[in-house]
Order: sequence, then C-alpha cells, then structure tokens
Amino acid sequence: MEEAQAAALRGEVPVGAALSGPDGQLLARAGNRVEEWHDPSAHAEMLVMRAATAQRSGRRLADCVLYVTLEPCPMCAAAATHFRVGRIVFGAYDPKGGGVEHGPRVFSHPGCLHRPEIVGGVRERETGRMLQDFFRHLRA
Amino acid sequence: MEEAQAAALRGEVPVGAALSGPDGQLLARAGNRVEEWHDPSAHAEMLVMRAATAQRSGRRLADCVLYVTLEPCPMCAAAATHFRVGRIVFGAYDPKGGGVEHGPRVFSHPGCLHRPEIVGGVRERETGRMLQDFFRHLRA
Repeated sequence: MEEAQAAALRGEVPVGAALSGPDGQLLARAGNRVEEWHDPSAHAEMLVMRAATAQRSGRRLADCVLYVTLEPCPMCAAAATHFRVGRIVFGAYDPKGGGVEHGPRVFSHPGCLHRPEIVGGVRERETGRMLQDFFRHLRA
Repeated sequence: MEEAQAAALRGEVPVGAALSGPDGQLLARAGNRVEEWHDPSAHAEMLVMRAATAQRSGRRLADCVLYVTLEPCPMCAAAATHFRVGRIVFGAYDPKGGGVEHGPRVFSHPGCLHRPEIVGGVRERETGRMLQDFFRHLRA
C-alpha cells in the first residue's frame, strides 16, 4: 500500500506490489511506473516479478508470494504463469480490468501451465478506496 | 525470422518480432531474451513494444504493426492492448501457448479495451518449422 501511495504521488495509477520469498523475506517491492518510464507494461506486478527472478538468477517464483493492491490484469496474470508464482494475494477486485476473476480469467483455461493459489479481496475496502480517490481526483 | 534464428543460436525459444511505424519504417526488432536476461517476460513482442513506445516518448502504437513469428501468448496479447497496437501479424498458430486464437483469447472478451486487427498464419510453415526443429533438437 505504501508503494501504491508513492505511485499516486508520481501521477501513476496507484497500484503497488511486493514479492516475498520462501521464508517470508521481502525480495522486491514496486509501484506502477507506466507514465514515468513510457512503458505501458511497467505494472507493479511485472516489476517485482522481474526484479525477484533476476535476483535469483532466473529461478522461478514457485516458493514465493506476490502481493498486489489490485486484481492483476490479464497481462500480469499471464506473466505470473511464466514466472511460476506460487501464490497471489490481491486487494481490490477489478471487474473492468482484472484478468484473474474477471475478463479472460487466464488461470481458468485447461491449457494454463501453472496456476498460482489465489487469495483475493484482502483489505479490499482500503485498496479500492485509494483507486477511487485517485480517479475521482483525475476527473475533478 | 532473422531475429528468431538469432534467438535460437543464443539458446532461446526461436521467436522473433518487429514493429513498424505509420510509414512502414522499422521501429524495433528483437528476439526472445528470457534465458539471457533471467526474465520470463522478455518475449520478443514485449521487447519491441517497449522499445518502440519508449522511442515515441510514451505514444501508444495505434498506427503501428507488430510482426511476430508465433501467435502471441496471453501475456503478450494482453500487453498489446495496453500498448494499443494497431495490427498484429503473426506466423505459426500456437494451440498450446497462444492467447489470441487459443486459450483465454484475450481480445475476445467484451471488457477488452483495445483489439488490434489480427492476421495470423503468415508464412506459417516456415515459422512453425523453426520452432519444431528447435524443440526436436532440445529433446535429442
């Protein structure tokens, strides 16, 4: 949530992520960098998965947990399959842009080669409110 | 196809991509860098979309064409929505890993905010053969 707040201060959509390793230690944390980096793929989830895997010399993340304040979009959800993330814990559900419980539901297809455990709706009200506040401010 | 061949020589799954701008000029070309960069998201398509958008200071790719030797996976297809790619031209269909005509079919959901034009199966036999040769060699 700190990363999401920091992202909002940079003018980014306030989504933050963290990745913890097998002993619960923090491997990476990041917020969105889409605007700053001119990179529409620089979602918080992508950044922490890439950082953690690079640190582990390419070892995939089956023993890791990805925490993110918003339901991952289809790109990030599908990336979590490539990175072999063990578990995803996310905050607010995203009926419009989500790809886990909504839209293409990327883990729900028979061909999906790796399905993380999913825990959604954690601190849903707080994480959702940050996004609502951000978009309300944008429109004002 | 040259990028795919170069990727194979680096021990990468041989997939290559190129991105052309509004006048048909080449903006970026790349092959997979998953192994070399320890980055499971370093698919050829992601690399060219990121490179081209950075070059254009964040301008999205609605007037651009993404060429790739294999049907994009769900991650890359969903990324193409974020990057607002105008058209995707791909080679071999990928019934196991594809995300455009197979699996989650990310552009086929009502919530999908941007759907590139899709042209699939271009030089399908040649692009498919490169992949078959690569995997046959790996198993040998």
